[in-house]
Amino acid sequence: MDKLEHSECTAMILPVKDALEVLGGKWKLQVIIALSFGPKRFREIAREVTGITDKMLSKELKNLELNQLVKRTVYDAFPPVVEYDLTTHGQSLHKLIGELKEWGDLHRKVVLGR
Amino acid sequence: MDKLEHSECTAMILPVKDALEVLGGKWKLQVIIALSFGPKRFREIAREVTGITDKMLSKELKNLELNQLVKRTVYDAFPPVVEYDLTTHGQSLHKLIGELKEWGDLHRKVVLGR
Repeated sequence: MDKLEHSECTAMILPVKDALEVLGGKWKLQVIIALSFGPKRFREIAREVTGITDKMLSKELKNLELNQLVKRTVYDAFPPVVEYDLTTHGQSLHKLIGELKEWGDLHRKVVLGR
Repeated sequence: MDKLEHSECTAMILPVKDALEVLGGKWKLQVIIALSFGPKRFREIAREVTGITDKMLSKELKNLELNQLVKRTVYDAFPPVVEYDLTTHGQSLHKLIGELKEWGDLHRKVVLGR
């Protein structure tokens, strides 16, 4: 990283904090990864994300919708069917998650030696 | 992301959480960025990371040392001079921080439209 002025430092920190905010917390990442394989219903996501309560899952899904990472589609059936899927913007997280995984693996090797 | 089995999902989540853990929290990122431009003394880092207390900075530096991201060098002078610097492993964070910044900028545009 070349010599950055103080203002450039701060301009750097804000977007990085935004990205960490979106992925941070106990459940967001697992919900995003669960949705990385196509649209799912609430019950399917709840099953894949072990340990999450219905209340927490609906809160996380609302947050992800607000952040335009997930879209919610209601199908006109009886009873109505609701599906959740990653938006194109949500799918743009795949590359970042891959980079985080790669660095996390490296970090484990360096710190734990395995 | 191709179809991943459940076990592969879990194997993915752990390293990503490790990476988020290292960069998470209020101060770590700012300390790492402050050290991205060469070795610095405690006072210099404290000045660059606005608002951090001495107690918090020494705690964060110890944590970064434990994680083998920062090294501490004591120069035999009177009084002794102590400098902190990123290790090679610490410098491997630059690429990840760059990716986080890029995605954070994109996210701002999508969500805030600017």
